[in-house]
Amino acid sequence: MTRKELVELIYAKQSFLCVGLDTDIKKIPQHLLKEEDPIFAFNKAIIDATSQYCMAYKPNLAFYESNGVKGWISFEKTIQYLNKHYPHHFIIADAKRGDIGNTSAMYARTFFEEMNLDSLTVAPYMGEDSVSPFLQYEGKWVILLALTSNKGSQDFQLTSDAEGERLFEKVLRKSQEWGNEENMMYVVGATQGKMFKDIRKIVPHHFLLVPGVGAQGGSLEEVCKYGMTDDCGLIVNSSRAIIYADSTENFAKVAAQKAKEVQLQMANELAKKAAN
Amino acid sequence: MTRKELVELIYAKQSFLCVGLDTDIKKIPQHLLKEEDPIFAFNKAIIDATSQYCMAYKPNLAFYESNGVKGWISFEKTIQYLNKHYPHHFIIADAKRGDIGNTSAMYARTFFEEMNLDSLTVAPYMGEDSVSPFLQYEGKWVILLALTSNKGSQDFQLTSDAEGERLFEKVLRKSQEWGNEENMMYVVGATQGKMFKDIRKIVPHHFLLVPGVGAQGGSLEEVCKYGMTDDCGLIVNSSRAIIYADSTENFAKVAAQKAKEVQLQMANELAKKAAN
Repeated sequence: MTRKELVELIYAKQSFLCVGLDTDIKKIPQHLLKEEDPIFAFNKAIIDATSQYCMAYKPNLAFYESNGVKGWISFEKTIQYLNKHYPHHFIIADAKRGDIGNTSAMYARTFFEEMNLDSLTVAPYMGEDSVSPFLQYEGKWVILLALTSNKGSQDFQLTSDAEGERLFEKVLRKSQEWGNEENMMYVVGATQGKMFKDIRKIVPHHFLLVPGVGAQGGSLEEVCKYGMTDDCGLIVNSSRAIIYADSTENFAKVAAQKAKEVQLQMANELAKKAAN
Repeated sequence: MTRKELVELIYAKQSFLCVGLDTDIKKIPQHLLKEEDPIFAFNKAIIDATSQYCMAYKPNLAFYESNGVKGWISFEKTIQYLNKHYPHHFIIADAKRGDIGNTSAMYARTFFEEMNLDSLTVAPYMGEDSVSPFLQYEGKWVILLALTSNKGSQDFQLTSDAEGERLFEKVLRKSQEWGNEENMMYVVGATQGKMFKDIRKIVPHHFLLVPGVGAQGGSLEEVCKYGMTDDCGLIVNSSRAIIYADSTENFAKVAAQKAKEVQLQMANELAKKAAN
């Protein structure tokens, strides 16, 4: 998906909501456990119920890998289902990969060629050659971890160098030598609030993938206030607050309601921005 | 495996060699392609041939994941085979994971409880809560990326802060607040040569996992000169130079010869150290 198509998608749907498919066998409704593949059954129901309110889906691979081979089957089935029935949604594999060049190239082949995903989250610690193999695919995106939503983000990401540049700022700046606004985004946690102002000084136009709204406590309004660009520039992820909003047989319906509530807030934020 | 057991293993075998199972379907001998699971068939032959010369195996998950579900089956079979036939070898999942706390906890369960691996490589970018869930298992190890062997290690890992501390040094120092010499090691690339001196100032006793000897050009002698401790303190990995030394039906035999050559150099290095 090109940047132009991504922006059109967001305005057409009046939504920049990404639904995080952090599907945990211990948290899904009990009645699904009798299904052959409960994880996939849950995902399918959540996707069908929420698709009109969101523009992206983000399965976190950790949740699938933690079930071993069975988990990978659920993951692949989910991706195949999305590719077949929702080809216009933006699909993010939340993989947080990052390895030496030849290994990253293998990951790129798997996720972009074989699975036809739109994007992949990548950890920056190993530098350019761990990231650049993912940038060789037209219409595909690297989403680089910059400033994450967790407490541990303080340990290294906020460290300043001799010139006062913090590590996450260095990641933002340096990585622009490798990719551009058409193939690179950044992960910035919603819990980082006013930091979005500093981030926009370095990446005024890049798209940001923003986890941490909802269960982790980030505010959508604040994220939009400091992070939104003229063509939106945000994909905001919500996982637990939507997919686990209800644990009865009504779970998909309630997830849809929650997604709709977020979508309405987002439409409002887009309108506010347009009016400015 | 406790640190004491690990050290005993190394001296008993006179080897601190880890054979990297970076198994690529495109690089294994042609005649294996007729096997039901060529990747596992290759691994099994390599393991049986090299086990007496090495004390550890390190499958790099990227190579397995890039084959999707089939790859995970090969990976799990390899781990089961190692657990069953070589329970005294130290098994490292080269996964380079790192995610928010609840996700890291899921990874820890999978790799340590279900698969019974001894250790896992972890990326430090997301800080403490992405690492500490792995430190809750007695006899299990986190191997944290510190200074990697690739060119991109220069991009962020070598950045100095206002006090002149480089990022990899900060990772070494800070992570000692989370773990200790009994449950934490560090990845330091063999290509980093004299950097081992600086590293030993911060972690004088910790074990280091050292990739990059062989195909990537690092020198075993230099690594030992600057990095070896009184109880060894090193696990040196070689992948391509051993497993792909030959591509005929003799591949396992040649791999064993190569592993033996490295083991003899290692025995020599251990003797040199003991004599000092």
